[in-house]
Amino acid sequence: MSAEGRDLLLTNAVLDGARVGLRVKDGLIAEIGPEFAESPDGNEPVLDADGALLVPPLVNSHTHSAMTLFRGHGDDLPLMRWLQEAIWPVEARIDAEDVYWGARLACLEMIRTGTTSFWDMYWQPEATARAVTDAGIRSTIGGPMIDPDTEAGIQERNRILEEELDHLDGFGDRIRAAVAPHSIYTVGTESLEFAARLADERKLPLQIHLSETEKEVADCIDRHGLRPAQYLDRLGLLGERTLLAHGVWLDRAELELIAERGATVISNPVANMKLAVGGIFPYPQARDAGVRIGLGTDGPGSNNSLDLFSDLKAFALAQRHAARDAEVIPAGEAWAIATGRRSELIGVPEPLAPGRKADFLLLDPDRHELALGDLESNLVYTASGSVVRSTVVGGRTLMDSGRVEDAEEIIARARERSLRLGLGSGPGAAA
Amino acid sequence: MSAEGRDLLLTNAVLDGARVGLRVKDGLIAEIGPEFAESPDGNEPVLDADGALLVPPLVNSHTHSAMTLFRGHGDDLPLMRWLQEAIWPVEARIDAEDVYWGARLACLEMIRTGTTSFWDMYWQPEATARAVTDAGIRSTIGGPMIDPDTEAGIQERNRILEEELDHLDGFGDRIRAAVAPHSIYTVGTESLEFAARLADERKLPLQIHLSETEKEVADCIDRHGLRPAQYLDRLGLLGERTLLAHGVWLDRAELELIAERGATVISNPVANMKLAVGGIFPYPQARDAGVRIGLGTDGPGSNNSLDLFSDLKAFALAQRHAARDAEVIPAGEAWAIATGRRSELIGVPEPLAPGRKADFLLLDPDRHELALGDLESNLVYTASGSVVRSTVVGGRTLMDSGRVEDAEEIIARARERSLRLGLGSGPGAAA
Repeated sequence: MSAEGRDLLLTNAVLDGARVGLRVKDGLIAEIGPEFAESPDGNEPVLDADGALLVPPLVNSHTHSAMTLFRGHGDDLPLMRWLQEAIWPVEARIDAEDVYWGARLACLEMIRTGTTSFWDMYWQPEATARAVTDAGIRSTIGGPMIDPDTEAGIQERNRILEEELDHLDGFGDRIRAAVAPHSIYTVGTESLEFAARLADERKLPLQIHLSETEKEVADCIDRHGLRPAQYLDRLGLLGERTLLAHGVWLDRAELELIAERGATVISNPVANMKLAVGGIFPYPQARDAGVRIGLGTDGPGSNNSLDLFSDLKAFALAQRHAARDAEVIPAGEAWAIATGRRSELIGVPEPLAPGRKADFLLLDPDRHELALGDLESNLVYTASGSVVRSTVVGGRTLMDSGRVEDAEEIIARARERSLRLGLGSGPGAAA
Repeated sequence: MSAEGRDLLLTNAVLDGARVGLRVKDGLIAEIGPEFAESPDGNEPVLDADGALLVPPLVNSHTHSAMTLFRGHGDDLPLMRWLQEAIWPVEARIDAEDVYWGARLACLEMIRTGTTSFWDMYWQPEATARAVTDAGIRSTIGGPMIDPDTEAGIQERNRILEEELDHLDGFGDRIRAAVAPHSIYTVGTESLEFAARLADERKLPLQIHLSETEKEVADCIDRHGLRPAQYLDRLGLLGERTLLAHGVWLDRAELELIAERGATVISNPVANMKLAVGGIFPYPQARDAGVRIGLGTDGPGSNNSLDLFSDLKAFALAQRHAARDAEVIPAGEAWAIATGRRSELIGVPEPLAPGRKADFLLLDPDRHELALGDLESNLVYTASGSVVRSTVVGGRTLMDSGRVEDAEEIIARARERSLRLGLGSGPGAAA
């Protein structure tokens, strides 16, 4: 039970075609069913859904949230030039307040578009944790480990990392700390082993970019004689608490190894296509091997959106296209992935059930996107995040009928930080 | 000057970073500039943009609008099974009122998401023309020609087609009739030649599906010894008023021929990926050959959306992916295509200029999608149609601050028609 968990009675929601209500105690779902649909009899606050559709929230399982500040910056560059020419020079002067307001803007976007939890990897992780805490959603957060040039630098980085993890631990139950080695091409073997030990000792999740480009795979084979997933496994980094972002170039043997170890792969189809990495995550092979799977936007600087509905559609389309098979991923399967139901690490196997966290969305039933057809198909192929009318996390209503507290201030402050970094004030700030 | 064209004074809009106003006379832009930003001095109605961003509207250059009724139906089937098992059996019992309300729902979606003109190919074209007229937007409409089995049937179809074209001609200047042979695999050589003559005599646009699947190309070579575009050219169907939908498998020689003839190719990337045709329209080659290009959703039954912003993002992503080149299509180029600026047939070369139709959008500058970054990049990669606050066609405000007249009735009536056809009442109609 969280100190922050709220009580709430949700009435007049529609679930699977029937009116239901939902009673929240201390942030957890206490009861759900038709018998609570219309009769408030307690003292808890009441949220009248007025016929809105009750669905689980989405889980954005790989992003760099504060990169909202970089949206559109160096847009038409390939991955390495984008990093080296557009991103890293600005990141050299980013501070904690920049990260805080970038992450607040990201949380605002996620609340508005139905994502209530996300996995983050970015500098100044405590600033992101503060933003997530203030925004009221959930995040698994790790500051990226990238090896400095010297052994002394690495020792100092490790010391800071442990401090960060200690601090992240103190943010309450909506924040989970993670160990986040950036990738096998920016972190050496010893540091990767250190990351594995750290995650193991502290029982923390470990997230890493893996197999995003063909070059990464070729270089790994050259240097270590192993493909990326095999190399990680040799160093002890593959386990049930491991999240691998991208996985575009994983082969069958790697997928089988990942499945055996119980690690989760996160597909980021929009960012992969935008950065033109050239491949599509081999979802059918991963599914058939039994790999746990999630969906991410990647950073809003390389997508350029945090509306996971857009990535959900892109995921299904890219898979149908790559397989040349329109039957390769039914809508319900794609929706399950986007809502975290294909990995216990990132989600929950049975959302909207008693004992579970009271995180849910209410969708406007009168929107043209939901007017006709099948709900899951509409959610995958027709909807954008704008169908979300209300967003509830731990029984707390973060968006009610499209309104989010402090939205104007968040946008104004993010614009100030963007200006400070020399990234402009955005098209909406003109005149 | 249209009898339906209105007068309007738009004030306090933001264009390219500066406050502007825009004066509309008889449905056409009379004046535009900073000097009209704040001073209403005439009798015309005033629309205060309140700092909203003024941009040209999108052009959906290939769809089958009434197929909103089929949204999600047979969703996970490949093209031919989708047509034969899911669509055609229901189309056998569709009537004019079904088409009217399906098309009204489509127009509602387009108005809400910033599309003010579209190219339509569907049964009962007069019902669609009536829907478009009532909705207040623009359309180029042709009932599909598909050859019946007998010569007598073909003659009767041709007679009905000429009648339809006469009737479509009477709908005023927001409706343009088109000749619409469905494809080279459903229409024989003689009928294609008849279509070419008809379009030529009446000076009408001609629209046809072309080169959507590899099988279509192989069959065309087998039967006629020519690739599809060459075959069309031999029959006299390639010209400046010709619109070719899909063009996924066009080769370099065909692209050069199409460019020489001045025909326009419409890419439908979402529908192509969803129906798993296996290829991506070769945009860089088409552009380099000088082909005129537009963007379409294809029918809302195979997309399943009419929000062209979603197709715009998919178009740019698919091109970057297919070319393995993040620089292949700058955001401004993609935006120009979606707004009809890469084909005189479907759009206008200089929108928002005096003498042009007063069709434009106002975008909410405070939306998180537009808060930071570059406008064109945001429109391509970040926005959905939900950033559109107001939609104006011919000086008439069809959506004002998100409100469209008759929206509730349109959705209710479309649900009735969907129920009548045995397609269900939609997820939003429950309980």
